[in-house]
Amino acid sequence: MKRVVLNADMGESFGPWAMGDDASLLEWVTAANVACGLHAGDPVVLLRTVEQAAARGVSVGAHPGYPDRQGFGRREMALSAEELEAFVLYQLGAVQAACRACGVPMTHVKAHGALYHRACRDAGAAQALVQAVLRLDPGLVVVGPEGSQLLAAARQAGLPVAREAFPDRGYGPDGSLWPRGSPGSVVEDPDRAAARAVAMVVQGRVQAVDGSWLAVQAETLCIHGDHPGAARVAARVRRALEEAGVQVVGFTRAEGR
Amino acid sequence: MKRVVLNADMGESFGPWAMGDDASLLEWVTAANVACGLHAGDPVVLLRTVEQAAARGVSVGAHPGYPDRQGFGRREMALSAEELEAFVLYQLGAVQAACRACGVPMTHVKAHGALYHRACRDAGAAQALVQAVLRLDPGLVVVGPEGSQLLAAARQAGLPVAREAFPDRGYGPDGSLWPRGSPGSVVEDPDRAAARAVAMVVQGRVQAVDGSWLAVQAETLCIHGDHPGAARVAARVRRALEEAGVQVVGFTRAEGR
Amino acid sequence: MKRVVLNADMGESFGPWAMGDDASLLEWVTAANVACGLHAGDPVVLLRTVEQAAARGVSVGAHPGYPDRQGFGRREMALSAEELEAFVLYQLGAVQAACRACGVPMTHVKAHGALYHRACRDAGAAQALVQAVLRLDPGLVVVGPEGSQLLAAARQAGLPVAREAFPDRGYGPDGSLWPRGSPGSVVEDPDRAAARAVAMVVQGRVQAVDGSWLAVQAETLCIHGDHPGAARVAARVRRALEEAGVQVVGFTRAEGR
Amino acid sequence: MKRVVLNADMGESFGPWAMGDDASLLEWVTAANVACGLHAGDPVVLLRTVEQAAARGVSVGAHPGYPDRQGFGRREMALSAEELEAFVLYQLGAVQAACRACGVPMTHVKAHGALYHRACRDAGAAQALVQAVLRLDPGLVVVGPEGSQLLAAARQAGLPVAREAFPDRGYGPDGSLWPRGSPGSVVEDPDRAAARAVAMVVQGRVQAVDGSWLAVQAETLCIHGDHPGAARVAARVRRALEEAGVQVVGFTRAEGR
Repeated sequence: MKRVVLNADMGESFGPWAMGDDASLLEWVTAANVACGLHAGDPVVLLRTVEQAAARGVSVGAHPGYPDRQGFGRREMALSAEELEAFVLYQLGAVQAACRACGVPMTHVKAHGALYHRACRDAGAAQALVQAVLRLDPGLVVVGPEGSQLLAAARQAGLPVAREAFPDRGYGPDGSLWPRGSPGSVVEDPDRAAARAVAMVVQGRVQAVDGSWLAVQAETLCIHGDHPGAARVAARVRRALEEAGVQVVGFTRAEGR
Repeated sequence: MKRVVLNADMGESFGPWAMGDDASLLEWVTAANVACGLHAGDPVVLLRTVEQAAARGVSVGAHPGYPDRQGFGRREMALSAEELEAFVLYQLGAVQAACRACGVPMTHVKAHGALYHRACRDAGAAQALVQAVLRLDPGLVVVGPEGSQLLAAARQAGLPVAREAFPDRGYGPDGSLWPRGSPGSVVEDPDRAAARAVAMVVQGRVQAVDGSWLAVQAETLCIHGDHPGAARVAARVRRALEEAGVQVVGFTRAEGR
Repeated sequence: MKRVVLNADMGESFGPWAMGDDASLLEWVTAANVACGLHAGDPVVLLRTVEQAAARGVSVGAHPGYPDRQGFGRREMALSAEELEAFVLYQLGAVQAACRACGVPMTHVKAHGALYHRACRDAGAAQALVQAVLRLDPGLVVVGPEGSQLLAAARQAGLPVAREAFPDRGYGPDGSLWPRGSPGSVVEDPDRAAARAVAMVVQGRVQAVDGSWLAVQAETLCIHGDHPGAARVAARVRRALEEAGVQVVGFTRAEGR
Repeated sequence: MKRVVLNADMGESFGPWAMGDDASLLEWVTAANVACGLHAGDPVVLLRTVEQAAARGVSVGAHPGYPDRQGFGRREMALSAEELEAFVLYQLGAVQAACRACGVPMTHVKAHGALYHRACRDAGAAQALVQAVLRLDPGLVVVGPEGSQLLAAARQAGLPVAREAFPDRGYGPDGSLWPRGSPGSVVEDPDRAAARAVAMVVQGRVQAVDGSWLAVQAETLCIHGDHPGAARVAARVRRALEEAGVQVVGFTRAEGR
C-alpha cells in the first residue's frame, strides 16, 4: 500500500499579524512545518500552533529560516556555514521545546524560503543544516527535493530523508519548479492539484508545463498555505489520495538514534 | 562538608558587540547562566558559550529575559502570564538545544534583569516561569532569592530550587539588595567580596550596610560579570571558599523526573 | 462653520503581514497617523502609505509607539524620559523623511497604544514627547484627549494641539473611555457612530454608557481602522458630518515656527 | 590650498553594548558618518552622537546599512531596489531628525558595509540609494570611491559627490582595496597611515602592495574607527596633513537645491 505525508507550513503569524488558516489546514494535512520565530512566528504563536497540531495528531516539525522577519526569510542573506549551523540549531531547539511542552515528538525539519533554496544548491549550507540536525537529534527526518545538495548531505550523514513534491506547483521539463509569476507556475484548481497529487504518489509521475511527463519519487507532498484556497486544496488532495488507496500518514522519526 | 555553586551570567555578547569576559570567568565559576538570544546573546554566541562551558565542566543553565534587546531586558515590560510562559519556554529550548549539541545536560534556570525582579515579587509571573520549566524539564533547578514568589511557586510545583546570595552586593538591614547607585551597593574589593562569600556559606550570615548581621541560606552565590574586575572577584571568592573547606560545585539536576 | 479632522491610524502592515484597509480608509478620513516602523510598519510600508495619503490629499502625521513589534506597542514598557524623547524623535524623523520624499508637509503627531496612554497620565513621558516635537518641528499639531498630561505639556510649550474624541468608542460617566471588553465599549453600528460624531462636533456632547451626557470639545475624531467594518464607519461618519454642515478638513500646521 | 575631509563611522554602539571610541575620534575627524539604527546604533545612541559631533563642529552625515543588526550589516542581503530606496530614505530621515534637533545641517551620506560594496558595483542599488537622497535632500554629498556605480549614479543625478580614499588600508595594483586578512591589507602604524594620507592628498597617489604607485583623487579620507588605535591614527593623520599645508575641513552641502 502506498503512503504519503501531506505537509504544510504553519505558525507564520507574528504578534498581532495573522497569516494563513492553520486551524483549517490542520484538518487535512498530516505534518506541520512550524515557523521558529526568526523569519516568522513568535514564542506565543509557536506554542499555540504546536498545541493545535498535537491536539489533532498532526506530526510536528521545525521550519527554520533566515533571521529576516521583515523580508519573511525570502531574501538571500549571506550567513556563513558556521552561522547557519548555529541559527538552525537555535530554531530547532525552539520547536523541540514546544513539542516537549505538548508531549509530542518533533519529527522533521524543513527549511523555509531562501534558506530552503540555498540548502538545495549550496553544499556548504546543506552540510551546515545537516550538522545542526545531527548535533541535536539524528532521528529527525530531513525534507527536501530529490537531487538537492540537502538530501545528499543528509543521506551521507545517515539521517532519514523525505523527498518532497509539490502538487500545486508547475514543473519545468527539467524537473525544476516553474518560476513563480510565469503562466502555469501555480495550480490553483483543487481538482487539478488533487489529480496531480494522485499521479505523483500512485504513478510516480507529474506532467510538466510543456506536456511532457516527469518521473517523481516523493514520500511527502507540500500544500502551500499562503493563499486563501489552501484549505480547500488540502482537503481535495487528501480525499483524492485516500480514494486512490493511498495512506496519508505523518512523519516517522528514526528512533533509537 | 559545606557546598556551594558559583554562578555567573554569560553569553551576553551580541553580533559584533562583545560583553563580559566569559573565558576568564569560566575558569572560576561552576555554573553559567547563558543568555538566550532575546535580551542578549544570539544563536552563534549561545552555542560558543555552551561549548566553552562544556569544555570546562561548568554546568550550563538558561538565563531568559524580556524580549527587549536594546534595553538589555532591564526595563519592565508588561507581558501577560501567557506570554511569559511562552517566551520563557522558547528561551529554555534554545539553551537546551545548545546543551544537547554539546553533549551536556541543562541544569538550571535563572531569570534576567527585570524579569528576575518581576518573578520575585509577582506571583503570576513566577507561576508562568515555573509552568514553562514544568512543561519542558522538571529536573531543572530554579534559582532565586529566599522569600521570593519565584521560589515559592517552584517549591509548590515540586521543582528543585537553589537559594541565591550576592557576595559582591550590599544588603539593606531588611535583607533586600541595597539599591544600585547608593553607597555600599556594590562590593568591588575582591578580598571583601571573598570574605562575605565565606561568611555567607560557612556562617550563614552577611553584614548589612548598617553593620547589622543578617541570616543567609544560600546554595548558590552569584558573581556579577559585567564589570572589568569580575574575573578577579570570582577567583578570590572561589579560592577563599575552598580554603575555608567549602566544596565549590556545579548544579545538580533532579534526575528521573 | 464647524470644522473637524477625521484621523485614523495607518501603515500598520509589516513585511508580508497586512493590517487594516488603508486604501479604503483614505477615501474618507482627512488625516493619516502613520506607523513609524518600531511597533508597526516598516520603511517600505511607511513610504507607500505616505505616497497614498499624499495622492489623496490626506494630511500625514507620525504615529510613534514603543519599540515592541511583537506586542504591537500595546504593552507598557518602562522607557526613561530620555529614552522616550530619543525614540519619538527617531520615529518622527522617519515619517518626516517620507513626507519630504512625497512633497507633502508632516502635520501632526499622535502616539500609539501604550505610549499614548502613558503620555496622557505621566507628566514626564508627556514632557519627553513634547520635547521631541519641539526639537524637531514646533509646527506639528499634538493630538490627544482633553485633560491629559500630554495636552497640558504641549500647551505649556506653545505647541498647537488638537483635542481628540472617539465616536466609535463608549465613554464612562466620568469621561474616560469605557474599558475594551466591557459591554458598550465599542460602537460597531456605523449609523450610531455617525450620530455620535455629529453630536460631538455640532452639539459638543456625547452620551455615556449610563445614559448621561458629557461635554466634548474635539478638533479631531478618531476612526479605528483595525476592524473589518472600519471603512464603512468612516464613510458614514464623514457623510453625516458633512450633511450636518460640518467641514471635514485635514490638520493645519502652525507655520512660521 | 589643498583641502580634505577626514571622515569616520560613528554611533555604532547599541543599547548596553559599546563600540568604538567616538569621543576621541571626534577630536580629530571633521565628518561623522552616523549609524542609523538598523545595522547599528539606536535612537538614543544616534541622538547622543549627533549632539557630540555638533558640539565639536564636526559635520554630520548618515551611515545607512542593511537591516541586519546581528550581522552588523556586513552580510550581503538581497533587498530589491524598491526596498533599498525605502530603507535608505528611512535611515536618512532618522539622522536628519537628530540633526534638526541639534541645530546642525546633515551634510552627507555614506553607506555601510555590504550595502556600500553593493552600491559600488550594482547599478540598480546605486540608483536606489541616489533616488532616496534625491527625494529627501539633493544638497547631501554622496561619498564613495572613484569608479564606482554609486558615484556614477550620483553625478548623473546632479548630486554633489566626494571621492573617498583609505590611508589605513592597503591597495592592490589595480586600485582595489586589498582583501582584509591578506598581508598588507591594513596599515596599523599611525606614521605610515599619515604619510599615505599626505601622499594621497598632496601628491595624488598611493603606493600599492606590490610597490607600484596608483593615482588617487580624493576629497575625503576615511579613518576606520573599529580598532583600538583608531584615535591615534586619526590624530597623526590630521597633524601630518596640516603640517603639509592641507586644510582639513568638514563636508559642504550643495545649498539652494
